[in-house]
Amino acid sequence: MTPYSSATPLTTPALVLDAAIVHRNVRRLADYAAKHHLRIRPHTKTHKSRWLARMQLDAGAGGLTVAKVGEAEVMMTVSDDLLLAYPAVDPVRCSRLAELAKSATIRVAIDSAIAVAALAQAAQQAGSTIGLLVDLDVGVGRTGVQSPRAALELAQTIQSTPNVRLDGILCYPGHIWLKPEEQRPALELVGAKLGTTLELWGRHGLEAKIVSGGSTPTAYQSHQNQHLTEIRPGTYIFNDMNTVRGGFCALEDCAARVVCTVVSDAVPNQIVIDAGTKTLTSDRCIPAPDSGHGYIVEYPAARIKALSEEHGQVDMSASDRRPRVGERVTVIPNHICPCVNLTDRCWWQEANEPLVPLGVDARGRLS
Amino acid sequence: MTPYSSATPLTTPALVLDAAIVHRNVRRLADYAAKHHLRIRPHTKTHKSRWLARMQLDAGAGGLTVAKVGEAEVMMTVSDDLLLAYPAVDPVRCSRLAELAKSATIRVAIDSAIAVAALAQAAQQAGSTIGLLVDLDVGVGRTGVQSPRAALELAQTIQSTPNVRLDGILCYPGHIWLKPEEQRPALELVGAKLGTTLELWGRHGLEAKIVSGGSTPTAYQSHQNQHLTEIRPGTYIFNDMNTVRGGFCALEDCAARVVCTVVSDAVPNQIVIDAGTKTLTSDRCIPAPDSGHGYIVEYPAARIKALSEEHGQVDMSASDRRPRVGERVTVIPNHICPCVNLTDRCWWQEANEPLVPLGVDARGRLS
Repeated sequence: MTPYSSATPLTTPALVLDAAIVHRNVRRLADYAAKHHLRIRPHTKTHKSRWLARMQLDAGAGGLTVAKVGEAEVMMTVSDDLLLAYPAVDPVRCSRLAELAKSATIRVAIDSAIAVAALAQAAQQAGSTIGLLVDLDVGVGRTGVQSPRAALELAQTIQSTPNVRLDGILCYPGHIWLKPEEQRPALELVGAKLGTTLELWGRHGLEAKIVSGGSTPTAYQSHQNQHLTEIRPGTYIFNDMNTVRGGFCALEDCAARVVCTVVSDAVPNQIVIDAGTKTLTSDRCIPAPDSGHGYIVEYPAARIKALSEEHGQVDMSASDRRPRVGERVTVIPNHICPCVNLTDRCWWQEANEPLVPLGVDARGRLS
Repeated sequence: MTPYSSATPLTTPALVLDAAIVHRNVRRLADYAAKHHLRIRPHTKTHKSRWLARMQLDAGAGGLTVAKVGEAEVMMTVSDDLLLAYPAVDPVRCSRLAELAKSATIRVAIDSAIAVAALAQAAQQAGSTIGLLVDLDVGVGRTGVQSPRAALELAQTIQSTPNVRLDGILCYPGHIWLKPEEQRPALELVGAKLGTTLELWGRHGLEAKIVSGGSTPTAYQSHQNQHLTEIRPGTYIFNDMNTVRGGFCALEDCAARVVCTVVSDAVPNQIVIDAGTKTLTSDRCIPAPDSGHGYIVEYPAARIKALSEEHGQVDMSASDRRPRVGERVTVIPNHICPCVNLTDRCWWQEANEPLVPLGVDARGRLS
């Protein structure tokens, strides 16, 4: 049933990347962005791989996005134009960024005057300049200043602070809980809030050269927001059950699959696979929280009902077929990004070629 | 409020281990086991550290437990008596185990004739012998043969197969969803099922030299089960909010804490810490699923209400105090084992000593 038979030396669980699907996903977004004159700045948190980042850059991406400074230090080797989409405030993180800014364009999204001061101080000590984007909350309620007025005040603080440069606005329209057809009104509100903010900035003589938005669920709606200059999707390169069940892609667009071995069938109506939370994470599927812990490609009626650290308990009662102990199955995870972060290497599969190991270069760069 | 001020070079998030609490936890279980003539075979999945495994052995543990073969390969360097509490069935995993069995005592818990055959074949090829424990399900419903009769049949299969050795029975009484006072009747059923199985084996001339049970929640009830010869708790060395809220230990017994930095307070009644699912995991607290994603020591009324990969959103509305952006706080995770697996190193803290880095040697050994 699966191409990864137990006769191969592949040990399980193993994260296998389908090369053709990766190439297609990268190309599709690149074509979309080119058509609409949007810059793509892919979020490398998904793959954490220099090699895949290079592929995205070769396909036309203009710079990269990272979440943590450790990721920036890794990705510096493939791009000299990085955005840290994460508020850096502590002295250690700020001075490492300020060091990077001596030899690359480093931008950081922030939402507090404390962050402006911390980054400016670090940049002053390093003799560098850090570009800042004002993080504006557009409905996710995680980070970001709340109002156009607050965005103006923070922009003015940046403008009057040495060693930092006001480059624009960042927002995170990551409305994955909305179906594609429900996104339109939510994204219209995003556009309106950005418009009000930009207009207010303009009246005070401030310019946003960069207006950065985009996430995988809303990526292909980005052209409807006239203000965006760039988008930062990450998951799109692989996709997962979040994007499938959210209606943003098909199963055939999922490039990353976990090859597992069935290790037990002792409990009636159940099999156990050798992938638990240390492989698949405990992340639920956001658009379908009761759909289990991933999708088994060869047994669509199976349901991964519970995970412990190294066990996946699969309810087979709705399936008319059962794998035997020792058989291999492939699982599409609910959320691919943290799964990649759990393995030291993935396996790259070109059609009819042997599997090639691919390091997860920025794995575990927590700081 | 926290001893890990932002003036130290510690980058956050950082997993810090309190040496005094670790020593006390290890000592307490060792004393209990000595008193009741039980062997402790600690499950190293929790810490994945050679150094901490050595500490447990020095305190009297007799051998170690691992979940995956990669962990066994790491722990081989500190003990020559290992139990893989996990069914090995695929050829790769079995032959790696058979190799290890050439120079150490290797035992594996299995629940299928397929596993017996696979391990025997690998051991035959390597010229080694692997000890087997029959995995008996005692109520968790994850792995394990279902009945004393099935346990007998599997034992007879082992007995008649070359290169494997029948060593006994393994069960997993991991009843963490029961409060300590509710465990008694459940554990009496465990004892009864083990007793029936052992009696049946005896009538057929089979002996279980090892009867392996125990998990952290039920560890201190083990003496009430007259059949157990050894216990395999893992979490007890650190503890976490699962064991606290389950009533199995106090907050003061939690040795592992994540030091975080507050990175945003832009959203009303909320702060954001720099630890999300890539640090704390998405694991809920089993005894209290609505208690949030961990416990903030310095702000007990705060509730970590949502995590994304690198953000922890903390609801501060019930707290009369608020940390400022840049302040550090310490979090006790819901489930410590997968958190340790997310970091390359922890920090060991002896009182009044500088922090010492401690490698997570078996991290990411998925296979």
